[in-house]
Amino acid sequence: MVDIIHRIGIKAPLSKVYAALATAEGVAGWWTEDATGEGTLGGTMQVTFHDPHGKEIGKMAFVLSELRQNEAVRWHFESGPEEWLGTDVTFELKQEGATTLLIFGHRNWREPVEFMAHCSMKWATFLLSLRQLVETGKGRPAPDDLKIDNWN
Amino acid sequence: MVDIIHRIGIKAPLSKVYAALATAEGVAGWWTEDATGEGTLGGTMQVTFHDPHGKEIGKMAFVLSELRQNEAVRWHFESGPEEWLGTDVTFELKQEGATTLLIFGHRNWREPVEFMAHCSMKWATFLLSLRQLVETGKGRPAPDDLKIDNWN
Repeated sequence: MVDIIHRIGIKAPLSKVYAALATAEGVAGWWTEDATGEGTLGGTMQVTFHDPHGKEIGKMAFVLSELRQNEAVRWHFESGPEEWLGTDVTFELKQEGATTLLIFGHRNWREPVEFMAHCSMKWATFLLSLRQLVETGKGRPAPDDLKIDNWN
Repeated sequence: MVDIIHRIGIKAPLSKVYAALATAEGVAGWWTEDATGEGTLGGTMQVTFHDPHGKEIGKMAFVLSELRQNEAVRWHFESGPEEWLGTDVTFELKQEGATTLLIFGHRNWREPVEFMAHCSMKWATFLLSLRQLVETGKGRPAPDDLKIDNWN
């Protein structure tokens, strides 16, 4: 099993970052505009990705398998790209002065395939979008996301 | 051992991306302005990082342990942060239409420590800087690099 891990600092209180990770409205502000579902422990969220012309290019669902207010969020993927099935996305938060430090993980990939390298790069840009959302009120969720290679 | 891996597409010929990885002049255009040394197989390069006020914040040296023209470059770190000693940075290039696809790796970390998560995020932003350099002629090397957390 192999993991993607990233670390980013966001100049905002823990609660604002937490809300962007634990609710569909939050996720819609930085990952993909088309995010729906319940922000409750054990609830499921659906996220759908469209290209700039409106064509669907990807769809996933995850269970909120951990929700510790202002501390940690875990998404367990139950549908989506084959490589993502059974993987977990984890967010750990801690405060340092006026900054929230976020440790991101996309964990339990079976193999370090090229698609994982794509996703690692793509997650980094989505974390920049998350920071932008929380600090300025406007992120870059899909379909306005930064394209990083020929896959997306 | 654990690896950071990223994938990015750059709209430029293989040779332009290769030159940005295999020469000190190239590296100075996207990673840190203070890059010196020999772009030859077995040659050593030194890179030094300064903050925007000119204070030195980091220094490393690596051997160009693999140089395959327009295909692959490998940097083997011989000095720098303790966690980097003995690690390798690898770049694999391939062409797809008018795009060069780059698979980046920072390989053989002993443990997936928080500093590795920082470096993964930071490498992603430096790869965006590399793309910008090759596509537009101007990257964002240190000290003008995008700051991503309280460590840099």
